Amino acid sequence: MEDVEAQRKIKSLGNSIVTEIKTGKNPRFVTASRTKSNITYDTKEGYLKLGRAKEERNFINVAQSKRFMQTIAIAAKCDKFIKENLHTTIRGLFYQLKYSLGEDVDESIFSEQAESNPLIEDLEAALEVKREELNLNATRRGVLAGNMKILDRFGGEKVEIDCTKQGRSGWSIPSDVDNDIEFVNVKAKYVLIVEKDAVWSRLNEDGFWKKENCILITPQGQATRGTRRLIRKLADMNLPIYVFTDSDAWGWYIYWTIKTGSINLAYIGKDVATPEARFIGVTMSDIDKYEFLKKLTINATEMDIKRAQEMMGYEWIKKYKEWVQELEIMIKSKKKIEQDALQGPRLTFVGDYLREKIKNNAVMP
Amino acid sequence: MEDVEAQRKIKSLGNSIVTEIKTGKNPRFVTASRTKSNITYDTKEGYLKLGRAKEERNFINVAQSKRFMQTIAIAAKCDKFIKENLHTTIRGLFYQLKYSLGEDVDESIFSEQAESNPLIEDLEAALEVKREELNLNATRRGVLAGNMKILDRFGGEKVEIDCTKQGRSGWSIPSDVDNDIEFVNVKAKYVLIVEKDAVWSRLNEDGFWKKENCILITPQGQATRGTRRLIRKLADMNLPIYVFTDSDAWGWYIYWTIKTGSINLAYIGKDVATPEARFIGVTMSDIDKYEFLKKLTINATEMDIKRAQEMMGYEWIKKYKEWVQELEIMIKSKKKIEQDALQGPRLTFVGDYLREKIKNNAVMP
Repeated sequence: MEDVEAQRKIKSLGNSIVTEIKTGKNPRFVTASRTKSNITYDTKEGYLKLGRAKEERNFINVAQSKRFMQTIAIAAKCDKFIKENLHTTIRGLFYQLKYSLGEDVDESIFSEQAESNPLIEDLEAALEVKREELNLNATRRGVLAGNMKILDRFGGEKVEIDCTKQGRSGWSIPSDVDNDIEFVNVKAKYVLIVEKDAVWSRLNEDGFWKKENCILITPQGQATRGTRRLIRKLADMNLPIYVFTDSDAWGWYIYWTIKTGSINLAYIGKDVATPEARFIGVTMSDIDKYEFLKKLTINATEMDIKRAQEMMGYEWIKKYKEWVQELEIMIKSKKKIEQDALQGPRLTFVGDYLREKIKNNAVMP
Repeated sequence: MEDVEAQRKIKSLGNSIVTEIKTGKNPRFVTASRTKSNITYDTKEGYLKLGRAKEERNFINVAQSKRFMQTIAIAAKCDKFIKENLHTTIRGLFYQLKYSLGEDVDESIFSEQAESNPLIEDLEAALEVKREELNLNATRRGVLAGNMKILDRFGGEKVEIDCTKQGRSGWSIPSDVDNDIEFVNVKAKYVLIVEKDAVWSRLNEDGFWKKENCILITPQGQATRGTRRLIRKLADMNLPIYVFTDSDAWGWYIYWTIKTGSINLAYIGKDVATPEARFIGVTMSDIDKYEFLKKLTINATEMDIKRAQEMMGYEWIKKYKEWVQELEIMIKSKKKIEQDALQGPRLTFVGDYLREKIKNNAVMP
């Protein structure tokens, strides 16, 4: 049970503070620095992570004592949630902190949620736990269908969910895919991630995951923590991960976030990045092969073009000549292609496109 | 099968045009006018609907012939989708129209999706069918748990989904809850709609729907067409419908959209409005009863206050003195309350709050 691990870590933090107090030292809280200057791209591993810089917060320090107290209050609340075996969100936590800090403290030391949110990240980084292990749920989004089963122990219930029997709906990916949940009988050849729910539904209706024996996921836009973590776990089962998005700024962002992680979550980079992921399309070069796409491009926005130019400068992108070429085509042509455009000739074409790309391994790094 | 009904209506539209051509008349397409001036609030029925104004579009009319052609092209594509028994979205439809209009027409008469979208609504209004019956899916969002089963016939699959066995995830509400889908064994006492997914998850973890024998739905923000239609269908089964939102502009908007429908969907108002719905909270007056809430209010935004002032003028709101009073409290105090605040004293308090309100029928119209 990872929960127990999180509790042990909170207790250990508490003990070290008590020891400092008893030995007449200034109680301190040390966490990894999450400032931009401490975020690096790990070339060897292929994801964004934190460097070695630390941040220290002391109790006896006018500028730091309030935040020190707030951080400890958050740790105490999370410890309580774990003991109660109940989950909430960072907003629920904020309201508990605002309501009361405990039996002895009547003063509200939190006035806005903007105060508590970064301190939760501090705690995650300091204890090397994810907030999900502190019983704090993040926003969930994302849906899955395919040959696998879920064992879900939740709220006093134990259920088995068969992801081949979810009809048009699919299985909703929860915030936490690590604790009290298991993935069993994962009998698929690969994982296909489709940016848009609408295109996922099209493929689901065609039985794509059944015919191809794959796991079909849509993050429904940008992938949440839960969906990114699930993709990481599926990659750990040695399943190839393919990502299919629009050929535009937003689509690329979805791909690179899944692959290398993001600045915001660099502090848990290893757990949510999937450097093994490959990009299946839509590519600007697809126009050479699928002539009809020329007719179905739409005008790139200024944001698309600005983003493409920025991406040419990222070390983890510019090292791939295929990506440099892609970005150059978009900047020059000022056009973009949506994944929905592949429904142009006929609704089922999108599946054929994917099948051919995967069969020929016509993917980008 | 409603699909067949939609096809029959498309055919009948086609036949009337053919007859007009054969008899030397100017082919015409008549639909209900969806302009604001033709939208009325039906005092007796309690929802927003279209009035009697019609809009006519003629083929032999320089200003109208392109849109006439486009509308017919859309009808033809939808007829094809129904025959193929395949679904897409209004975006997928757009790309098919852009790709080709048929064997004989090579000219692309659509350049932007903004052109085809309103014409689909024209067709829905003219034929008195919902786009879901034309095999066009809308955005889906919303999750459900509770004592009911779904029979889903989709993509050559037939599945039974038990909404008591969906664990932390719940059952995802699809775009279309009318065709090839059935709700059976609906054995619940009432339906509770919770604005936020996070609060829904809290209640789901507490087994609220099991203890109360209710159906627990979250629209995950503003309710989609599918979720609104599902609520309407559950109300038709004589289940009381309770809505629980934040006490702010966005929360009220969610409630009133579920209850009276919206201007955008007035053309299918009857099918998506649930005038029987009752508002459970959070109310500004809750502060009188739950003293701690005073500490947990947050500042109302300008938008919240402006919206409250506007709402005082709506005939379907100002007729209720309870609502006028609520809005006055918010305008005067410039405060609002989130539903998450009910987790302040303890995480499980939100369930107790709801139980008490429902037991005492302490709801607003």
